Amino acid sequence: MYIPTYDDVLAAHERIEPHIHRTPVLTSSYFNDLVGAELFFKCENFQKAGAFKVRGASNAVFGLSEEDAKQGVATHSSGNHALSLSYAAGRRGIPCNVVMPRTAPQAKKDAVKGYGGIITECEPSTSSREEVFAQVQAKTGGDFVHPYNDPRVIAGQGTCSRELMEQTDGVDIVIAPIGGGGMISGTCLTLSNIAPETEIIAAEPEQADDAYRSFKAGHIIADDAPVTIADGLKVPLKELTWHFVSNHVTDILTASEQEIIDAMKLTWKRMKIVMEASCSVPLATILKNKDRFAGKRVGVIITGGNVDLDTLPWIK
Amino acid sequence: MYIPTYDDVLAAHERIEPHIHRTPVLTSSYFNDLVGAELFFKCENFQKAGAFKVRGASNAVFGLSEEDAKQGVATHSSGNHALSLSYAAGRRGIPCNVVMPRTAPQAKKDAVKGYGGIITECEPSTSSREEVFAQVQAKTGGDFVHPYNDPRVIAGQGTCSRELMEQTDGVDIVIAPIGGGGMISGTCLTLSNIAPETEIIAAEPEQADDAYRSFKAGHIIADDAPVTIADGLKVPLKELTWHFVSNHVTDILTASEQEIIDAMKLTWKRMKIVMEASCSVPLATILKNKDRFAGKRVGVIITGGNVDLDTLPWIK
Repeated sequence: MYIPTYDDVLAAHERIEPHIHRTPVLTSSYFNDLVGAELFFKCENFQKAGAFKVRGASNAVFGLSEEDAKQGVATHSSGNHALSLSYAAGRRGIPCNVVMPRTAPQAKKDAVKGYGGIITECEPSTSSREEVFAQVQAKTGGDFVHPYNDPRVIAGQGTCSRELMEQTDGVDIVIAPIGGGGMISGTCLTLSNIAPETEIIAAEPEQADDAYRSFKAGHIIADDAPVTIADGLKVPLKELTWHFVSNHVTDILTASEQEIIDAMKLTWKRMKIVMEASCSVPLATILKNKDRFAGKRVGVIITGGNVDLDTLPWIK
Repeated sequence: MYIPTYDDVLAAHERIEPHIHRTPVLTSSYFNDLVGAELFFKCENFQKAGAFKVRGASNAVFGLSEEDAKQGVATHSSGNHALSLSYAAGRRGIPCNVVMPRTAPQAKKDAVKGYGGIITECEPSTSSREEVFAQVQAKTGGDFVHPYNDPRVIAGQGTCSRELMEQTDGVDIVIAPIGGGGMISGTCLTLSNIAPETEIIAAEPEQADDAYRSFKAGHIIADDAPVTIADGLKVPLKELTWHFVSNHVTDILTASEQEIIDAMKLTWKRMKIVMEASCSVPLATILKNKDRFAGKRVGVIITGGNVDLDTLPWIK
């Protein structure tokens, strides 16, 4: 298992800079007053392809040798990693094969196709996904870019907190959502090198709290099929992300489904930004643990904005 | 009738700077490709109180003498001017009375109260609004800050395009929605002084196209109670805004209700920003008149983001 280093983050940043946005950091006097802290929202919902995942995906795609790039890339994902890898592969002009469950939202499939991704559908089960993916990879020879358990992907995600620290002149705490742990691992990698005193807090839905339980137990606990509105956070930690989480994360906080929805709606209302349920989890945990954050400078990573606008969770 | 000058805009900018945001200018490669133009979105939805109107309102409130400020301020408004004046009066610590149509979005009424404004409701027509307001003003003696037909307000709104021109190093066209004409008049005032070659295009709902018909006829035509989703654009031009519109506006374009809703949803989806139906009208007219904008650098003023998130027009 290769553990990426901060040099990999620096190389990633140089490699992906032409293909990503340096996303803005927004502040809100409303939320500052509400929490009694200074919050800095790193808006990856404004990122290319609508999510931070384009950082890691671009690093993998543009880091391939000419020879390896010929076969293109391949992955399995029903979400933002599929869009991001399709986007990056499209920019490089190489094929991108994505295995998606046939039950994935049509809008997501359309977006993947819009970026030039080639979809092969599987049944919505782990066994079908793995079986179909093995066939696709055997046929295409595409380089497998895992959504998070890949050193190239983690190094790419690490560029986000590097920008955040530059844009804010430093913070006391960085908080980000945790699913498979790619963003948190990139954050750990960067901050443990350039700001080792900065606390790193992961935020997770109560109904998909496998990372929280892993963190407490000291080993990976993976759930079969957690159910949460934060659909980007259902996947389990893997060995590489567990390495970073277990070594560098200060704390994991959780929020209920209603707290997540309330934080999501409140952010749309007060900050006028469209963000996913998954990235509302950090703010939800901040609002229920104000004492933990009071008086601190807090970086909050808004991980994505790819929302189905036709089915908002507060409109029944 | 006092016609404000560019010196009034400069004085306004200095006066209101501590109370407003210098809002960001966002770009979107998606929309640039779609239109074949370079679009610069001036995001007043991120402004204090959620709308550009805080510029004019703050200029009026903070320009009052100590003596005049004692009675506070009063106005009638379909929404954003009400919240903006309440916000500015609250910052100065003086009372603010507002007459609002009973049909105004609940989000706006709540926000007015949140800023300390005192609401009196009227029927949703210009005649009812003026009648109820006369009663309120007689009772309170507050300084009347008209939502748009006031030189202090127009000078304040003129600060927006001043920032836009600085942030973009100039554009060929500025397009903004037109209701009563306050933003357009401020834009005319500023651009006719600092960028007289820049075209100024106003955008209006087909179902509230009184400014369009006035522009064609050469005199003010006022409708009493137009019906449109763009609730900020129902009010008619008045003599001061007509002065600027008739002298400096290049063109007025209109869009249907469905075109407005489609542009609104598409902006939320692609740019991840929450903006009102009223400020979706410019983009709606750009999308239906692409030839008019192709190859140009176009400033698009996103006037506000105070949306009732419980009743979105594309969710039935």
